[in-house]
Amino acid sequence: MAVYTHIPSEEMAELVRAFGAGKLLSAKGIAEGVENSNYLVDATHGRFILTVYEKRVDANDLPFFLSLIDHLADNGCPVPRARHTQGGGATINWRGKSIALIEFAEGLSVSHPTPSQARAVGAALGQVHKAAASFTMSRPNSLGPEGWFDLAERCGEDLDAIQIGLRERIAKECTFLNRHWPADLPRSVIHADLFPDNVLMIGNSVSALIDFYFACTEVRAWDVAITHAAWSFQNDGTGFDPSIGDAILAGYKKEFGLTREEQENFSILARGACLRFLLTRAWDWLNTPADALVTRKDPLAFLRRLEHYAAQ
Amino acid sequence: MAVYTHIPSEEMAELVRAFGAGKLLSAKGIAEGVENSNYLVDATHGRFILTVYEKRVDANDLPFFLSLIDHLADNGCPVPRARHTQGGGATINWRGKSIALIEFAEGLSVSHPTPSQARAVGAALGQVHKAAASFTMSRPNSLGPEGWFDLAERCGEDLDAIQIGLRERIAKECTFLNRHWPADLPRSVIHADLFPDNVLMIGNSVSALIDFYFACTEVRAWDVAITHAAWSFQNDGTGFDPSIGDAILAGYKKEFGLTREEQENFSILARGACLRFLLTRAWDWLNTPADALVTRKDPLAFLRRLEHYAAQ
Repeated sequence: MAVYTHIPSEEMAELVRAFGAGKLLSAKGIAEGVENSNYLVDATHGRFILTVYEKRVDANDLPFFLSLIDHLADNGCPVPRARHTQGGGATINWRGKSIALIEFAEGLSVSHPTPSQARAVGAALGQVHKAAASFTMSRPNSLGPEGWFDLAERCGEDLDAIQIGLRERIAKECTFLNRHWPADLPRSVIHADLFPDNVLMIGNSVSALIDFYFACTEVRAWDVAITHAAWSFQNDGTGFDPSIGDAILAGYKKEFGLTREEQENFSILARGACLRFLLTRAWDWLNTPADALVTRKDPLAFLRRLEHYAAQ
Repeated sequence: MAVYTHIPSEEMAELVRAFGAGKLLSAKGIAEGVENSNYLVDATHGRFILTVYEKRVDANDLPFFLSLIDHLADNGCPVPRARHTQGGGATINWRGKSIALIEFAEGLSVSHPTPSQARAVGAALGQVHKAAASFTMSRPNSLGPEGWFDLAERCGEDLDAIQIGLRERIAKECTFLNRHWPADLPRSVIHADLFPDNVLMIGNSVSALIDFYFACTEVRAWDVAITHAAWSFQNDGTGFDPSIGDAILAGYKKEFGLTREEQENFSILARGACLRFLLTRAWDWLNTPADALVTRKDPLAFLRRLEHYAAQ
C-alpha cells in the first residue's frame, strides 16, 4: 500500500490532457493494491484512477488487461473502462513506465458482507463469465496448478518457520491436487482475485469490479471457488458462513450456472484456490521485512480455509 | 506515506454520518503526509479528508489545530474547515484514536513554482499571520530553537554517518544561532511547515493551505523564513532561485509586512529554519530502515540551504 512513483503535478496535467480528460484539478496518491502506484484524479472531464504500472505487472500484459476491462464494460458488466489517447492507445509511456487512466467508480468495499451483497457479487461474476465468452485474447495463469509445486519448492524449509509442519502439509496438498485436479473443465478468461477489496458496492448492488491484474485463461469454475473462499470466512480464515457461500453460488447460478462436473469438483477447486493464496502469501511473508510499512497478509488464514474444504 | 489504520467501510459510514456529512459514497486511503492516516471521502453532503491521528500527533493538541483552521477560514484565509458533530465536537474517538473530517479542497501542489505562484504563496502566508493576530489559543514549538541542541545531541555521532563532519557543523551552528537568535521579534501562531506539499494551487492562485500539524506560537517572521527556504531551491537544496525567494517576500509584504528588525535578522531566521529541517530529517534518516516503504528525505538538502544563507 504505497505510492512508489511520484509524478510532479505539472507532468500529470500533461498526461491527463493526453488522455483527453481535460484539465487536471486535483490528484491524490492512493493506498490501493500493492502492485502499482495509483492516483485519484479529478479533471474537467471526470474522475479517474491514474495507474503507474510498477515492476510486478508485466507491460506486455497491459493490452490484455486493458482490452479485457473495455470488453467487459462494453458487454454490460460493472467494470470501469480505460481511457484511450487520441492515437487509440490505452497506455502512455512516462519515464519508462506505462501509465493508464481508468474511470473512477463510486462504491465501497464491504468488510462484513450480507447474503444479499454476496448474491450480487456471485451474479456479477456470472456476468463477467458470460461476457468473457466473446473475449478473444488469452493469458496463461502464472499462479495456476502448474506453478504450485515450484512455488512451494522456492519457499522451501522456511515454510516451517511460519508454522511447524506447514511444508509437509503443502507438499501433501500439491500431490493431492496434482492427482485430482479437474483440468478438463470448461476454460475462460477469469478475474482470479475477486476478494472484497476488488468489489465496490453501493448498498446491495455491485457498482464496480476492479483490479483485473491477475486475470488469465483458466478453469472457469475456479474463479467461483476463489470468490467463495475469499468471501465466506472471517479474515483469519475461521468462522465459515454458509449463508454467504450459498449466496455467492446462488447469484452466480442465476446469472451463468455451473455444470454437474463443476459442482462435483467444487471442493477440489476451492482447495486449489486456498493453496494458491496460502503459497503466495507465504512467499510474501517470508520475503517482506517485518518492519516494512506494508501489511503482510497472514498465510495461515488460507490454511484454515483449505482445511475447511478438505474436510468436506 | 501510508495508511496505518484501516477503517471498515461500515464503520466509516457511521463516522461520516456522525459528522453530519450524510451518506458515505466512496472512500480511498490516500498517501498524504507521514503523520496520520488519511482517507479521501465522498459523501452526499460533500467531499472530505477523513484523518485518523496516529501517535506522532498528540491528541491534546487537536483542539488547537482544529480551532486554528476554523479561525483562519472564518477570517478569509484559504484553509479548509473541520466538520463538527451535532454535539459540537471536531473529533470523534474511534477505537481509542481521534478522527476528524476536514473539507476537501481542489488544487495541486506545484513541483516547479513560478514567481507568480510564489507571490501568491507569500500573500497567503501574510493573510494567515493577519488572521492569527485574533486567535487566542497558543501552543509551544517543540521544534524551536530551545530544542535544537537536544535534538543534535540525540542524533549524536551517527550524524557523521550521513556525512563526515556533519556533527561538528551542526554543533557550530547551534552555538551560533543560540548566540544570535532574535527571540524578541514579534510572536504569533505560525504554520511552521509551509512546503509546496502543503499548498494547493489552481493556476496562479492558492486554493488551500493544509497540514497545520506543526503550527505553534513562535517568532512570526520565522514562518516567512521557513517558507522562503522551502520554496526557493531545487529539492536537493542546490540552485537557489532569487526570483522565487523575492516573490515570496513581495507577496508577504503586500499582505502583511516585515519590520526592519525582522528584515535585518532574516538570514539568521532562515539558518534556523534550515537547521530545524536538517535535524529532523537527519533524525528520521537515522531512525528509518532503508528498506521501509517511506521515502526518507535527504537531510543534506537542508545543509546546502543552510550554507546558502550562512554565506550571505
